[in-house]
Amino acid sequence: MNKEVLKEIELSQVKIVDEFWSDRQTLITDTVIPYQERILDDKVEGVEKSHAFANFRIAAGLEEGEFYGMVFQDSDVAKWLEAVAYSLSIKPDADLENRADEIIDIIEKAQQPDGYLNTYFTIKEPDKRWTNLHACHELYCAGHMMEAAVAYYQVTGKDKLLNVMERMSDHIEKHFVTEEREGIPGHQEIEIGLMRMYHATGKEKFFKLAKHFIDERGKDPSYFLREDENRGWKHDIMDPHNTKYNQSYAPVREQKTAEGHSVRAVYMYTAMADIASVNGDKELIEACKAIWDNIVNKRMYITGGIGSNFEGEAFTIDYDLPNDSVYAETCASVGLIFFAKKMLDIHPSSSYADVMELALYNGVLSGMQLDGKRFFYVNPLEVNPEISGKLFGYKHVLPERPGWYECACCPPNVARLLTSLGQYIWSESLDTVYSHLFIGGTSKLDLATITLDSKFPWEGNMTYTINPTGAKSEFALAIRIPSYAKEFKILLNGTEYTDKLDIRDGYCYINREWQDGDSVQLLFDMPVRRMYTNTLVRSNIGCVALMRGPIVYCFEGIDNGDNIQELRVRKDEDIIIGDYDPELLSGIVPLKVKGSRIYANDSLYFEGEFSHKEEMLTAIPYYAWGNRGLTQMRVWMHEV
Amino acid sequence: MNKEVLKEIELSQVKIVDEFWSDRQTLITDTVIPYQERILDDKVEGVEKSHAFANFRIAAGLEEGEFYGMVFQDSDVAKWLEAVAYSLSIKPDADLENRADEIIDIIEKAQQPDGYLNTYFTIKEPDKRWTNLHACHELYCAGHMMEAAVAYYQVTGKDKLLNVMERMSDHIEKHFVTEEREGIPGHQEIEIGLMRMYHATGKEKFFKLAKHFIDERGKDPSYFLREDENRGWKHDIMDPHNTKYNQSYAPVREQKTAEGHSVRAVYMYTAMADIASVNGDKELIEACKAIWDNIVNKRMYITGGIGSNFEGEAFTIDYDLPNDSVYAETCASVGLIFFAKKMLDIHPSSSYADVMELALYNGVLSGMQLDGKRFFYVNPLEVNPEISGKLFGYKHVLPERPGWYECACCPPNVARLLTSLGQYIWSESLDTVYSHLFIGGTSKLDLATITLDSKFPWEGNMTYTINPTGAKSEFALAIRIPSYAKEFKILLNGTEYTDKLDIRDGYCYINREWQDGDSVQLLFDMPVRRMYTNTLVRSNIGCVALMRGPIVYCFEGIDNGDNIQELRVRKDEDIIIGDYDPELLSGIVPLKVKGSRIYANDSLYFEGEFSHKEEMLTAIPYYAWGNRGLTQMRVWMHEV
Repeated sequence: MNKEVLKEIELSQVKIVDEFWSDRQTLITDTVIPYQERILDDKVEGVEKSHAFANFRIAAGLEEGEFYGMVFQDSDVAKWLEAVAYSLSIKPDADLENRADEIIDIIEKAQQPDGYLNTYFTIKEPDKRWTNLHACHELYCAGHMMEAAVAYYQVTGKDKLLNVMERMSDHIEKHFVTEEREGIPGHQEIEIGLMRMYHATGKEKFFKLAKHFIDERGKDPSYFLREDENRGWKHDIMDPHNTKYNQSYAPVREQKTAEGHSVRAVYMYTAMADIASVNGDKELIEACKAIWDNIVNKRMYITGGIGSNFEGEAFTIDYDLPNDSVYAETCASVGLIFFAKKMLDIHPSSSYADVMELALYNGVLSGMQLDGKRFFYVNPLEVNPEISGKLFGYKHVLPERPGWYECACCPPNVARLLTSLGQYIWSESLDTVYSHLFIGGTSKLDLATITLDSKFPWEGNMTYTINPTGAKSEFALAIRIPSYAKEFKILLNGTEYTDKLDIRDGYCYINREWQDGDSVQLLFDMPVRRMYTNTLVRSNIGCVALMRGPIVYCFEGIDNGDNIQELRVRKDEDIIIGDYDPELLSGIVPLKVKGSRIYANDSLYFEGEFSHKEEMLTAIPYYAWGNRGLTQMRVWMHEV
Repeated sequence: MNKEVLKEIELSQVKIVDEFWSDRQTLITDTVIPYQERILDDKVEGVEKSHAFANFRIAAGLEEGEFYGMVFQDSDVAKWLEAVAYSLSIKPDADLENRADEIIDIIEKAQQPDGYLNTYFTIKEPDKRWTNLHACHELYCAGHMMEAAVAYYQVTGKDKLLNVMERMSDHIEKHFVTEEREGIPGHQEIEIGLMRMYHATGKEKFFKLAKHFIDERGKDPSYFLREDENRGWKHDIMDPHNTKYNQSYAPVREQKTAEGHSVRAVYMYTAMADIASVNGDKELIEACKAIWDNIVNKRMYITGGIGSNFEGEAFTIDYDLPNDSVYAETCASVGLIFFAKKMLDIHPSSSYADVMELALYNGVLSGMQLDGKRFFYVNPLEVNPEISGKLFGYKHVLPERPGWYECACCPPNVARLLTSLGQYIWSESLDTVYSHLFIGGTSKLDLATITLDSKFPWEGNMTYTINPTGAKSEFALAIRIPSYAKEFKILLNGTEYTDKLDIRDGYCYINREWQDGDSVQLLFDMPVRRMYTNTLVRSNIGCVALMRGPIVYCFEGIDNGDNIQELRVRKDEDIIIGDYDPELLSGIVPLKVKGSRIYANDSLYFEGEFSHKEEMLTAIPYYAWGNRGLTQMRVWMHEV
């Protein structure tokens, strides 16, 4: 392990107690996970059939039947199991753990004698294993199951699934490394899974195999084309010439821009950063930095959404960020958080943590209905119900969250992220505790047990109570000062701490010999910020978006009347920050601002002037949009 | 014939001599028609293969081979022949006429003994005639060939093709009427063809058959579904459930909005208006008026483009008029002109003629490169070359005109419209000559020979010199006063004519006993108009379009620098009308206006202000865009 790299915190170290997040975690543990379990077991009516558990039972020989679902259906079980593990760390549940153990037993039985595990090929195409890496997701599913195995092992101490996946990893290593067969995953994910196996067990073989796939990728951009020609059969219509789609167009160390399918991309960047954090590979770090800069400075929605185009669910070109024909898959924002966290641990800089926070509070949260029962795959910044979800170019942009998807990657991805949120709040080095996210609770870190009290994201007032473990007498608490906190105050045991504020890369380092019960308070104003966009983003010209802290706001028709495109936020008017309303949209701080509505006559085209009518406009947090029925929505509002 | 309906002028009556149009007609006669002839005969390299002539030679038994091309490939030959006929009226050409005669001989040979004519079915599927009206375009092709037959007969006096198509009409009548087989065309056009056969020959049977198809349409919206089920084979993936696509969702007299495929729609509306003009069918007229109002007041681009959506090349919903993902097929604007002219002849109102003129000078002309060698199918109002034609949602929006299309409907449609322009300039009733379009030349009408001198569309100064034929001593000259001529003057023999100006529905009626050489001069200013859009059109909020007379202007990157979305036209600055430049874009009047370019920093999102830089902006006529290489273009410009 590279010594400069921060240590990730284990979930068992963190107990979240937070007004904003605890309820959301409870929603996942009490609603989402049981709901997803019933879906995976085909017990919910009126949603897309899953069959994911059944596939494992069939592959295990416990049940007769046919494989059903996407070729990567196994990964839904893996992501659910991973979320179950995290859930058990939040809220122990013996029944749930028993049921998870039973599923793991079935998975073990579905594993083939040689270690191979994949229900699609085992049931349907046993002779075609490893011949269609391009489209058939075997390595992808293995990666997710490895993540589940590690999570389940770390939370419960049970290693059955970990052992299953070690055998699968050995099988993969034999096939691709020992027996020197060419091949890279068509959808990256195995690299993350292997790196987690490595971190959990310390076994070098997992690291080497992860690095093998990263190193091989793009060495020969014609790999998938050759695979396609040799194979002679197709699974779907994926074009092996489109090497940008799966980032195999160039060796990863030569990639400087975010290209292709956004989820594949960020999963790969996450693994690249993780590998670099272990071996200090400078070229890999430089590639990660270049790609990171390209994403956040040229290809990211203000919500932390990435991958703007429906075709290929993909990154396109710099500044192509349409609001209404957007893609911005929930999973891609989840993956951006993974990538941000790995970058942050290589180099603690608020530029990574700010984006991690942005994606979490906006692009990811918007993916889930407030009741935890419906999910967005696509996260638009403008919705017009008469068009969105209906007309060509907008059919993928649903104006309301559906219950489940045939390709159900997003809901379990949200579930596993939110239940593992404890891993994103802190990092630790030998002499510093880093506070990345202002999520309340108590964390038992190596250097100290720290309790964080906050009403974030509604108030900029965080109190850290520190109880050193005694491992070290002197250490630093490094608190992220978010870019939106333009002025801030730090109180140490109630007294303003002004001497030699040590701020580096957006973290304020408070270094001292800590006493039991020492308190540090971070205070900053959270005025509403009027955000504007680079003029190269055509769709946002003349428009403003409102943010407060990390929260992006939006305007819905239900609050502001029909045809919100007619509304213009007044530039010369103050924006009124409403009182926190616990009843509204599960508890939000709404905004009010004077605006004007333009109107003219009934003509389609005319000469002459528009009239203006003053209206008080209401904005709500973007993540909470679409929770009150079918209505228009805009993040970017005309400003005058 | 309904006596109130105006008489259409025959092409032979009109000789166009006009600075703007004569050159364009020469372009069609000297460049487009010979180019299209070579394409139809597969003699042009590097463009989509046509094979349209070859199909007829094969069907005629003159050549061995297979059918190639779209199922409606025959219509390309028909539209070309129709344009050839018009071309011969403009510029006699014995060689061209001989070649056309030869093609007509081949067409006659391709006709089957029972009168049937269609190369696709004759060559490929002789047993499947008339079983797929939904997708296979037999009636559509017949309609176009009837139009060609009438045009060729009217210009050359030769009736061979007319007789061929009368036999085809008789065959159709026998099949669908006498033998009472259900059926309506999947693509309307036969109705127009039959009405032209009726007007040219006076034979009632053509009128009745046209009316039959109009009356049958939509009586049973499940017709195409039933046809599909009975047939048991498909030609393409057209969905028989989509009854709006081909306007079979309701009886035509009950249709109140423009729906579905826009070319099918306007062809049908044209025939509806034509039929109503003959029999005075009030319900049909009311339906036409309602649909007209819906199009021009809610579903038409400012350029006269219609059909805003790629999927189905279709009308969508009111006010859905995106500029950059637009469809606005050239053919649809051509068809809108057909529809407008029929409405105008039922009731002379400038509301029809204004739109006819608008579509002609903008949406149609933009379809053709200034050199006559390249054509647009789709006519966008905003083009961004890094996206348009490349990314999902914009792939159909090409930023430069290609040479030819696999589905080559638009180029010959432009050719036949521009060569038959003489039919759109005037109408006549028993006591009035109507001047609809300000296109110069000499026209031998029933009441008078009139010479019109004008430099339209660049100057609002039209001089009519009238030489009565003596058919009637007193009659009216009714000159359209376009809606943009807010103040106008009429001089009669050089003296202002102010007494009792008789203006009805946008036409100024000058009624008198005319003397040889009487002159009427119409004078109006053509200031630049700043046009705005109904606020229900989301994409145009905050934007202005410039028009002068009928000409819509646009801004290109080549004149205004990169990133024209950053430019804002200054509301408080006069727009400078440039001098007519005969060298620029085949002769245009450019516009100049002060504007400002906004800029800020390199950030993607930021707080703070934009800076502004004054720039002089240049606008050119929309029809001339895309003639100077790949460049950005916008009609709707931000205004400040």
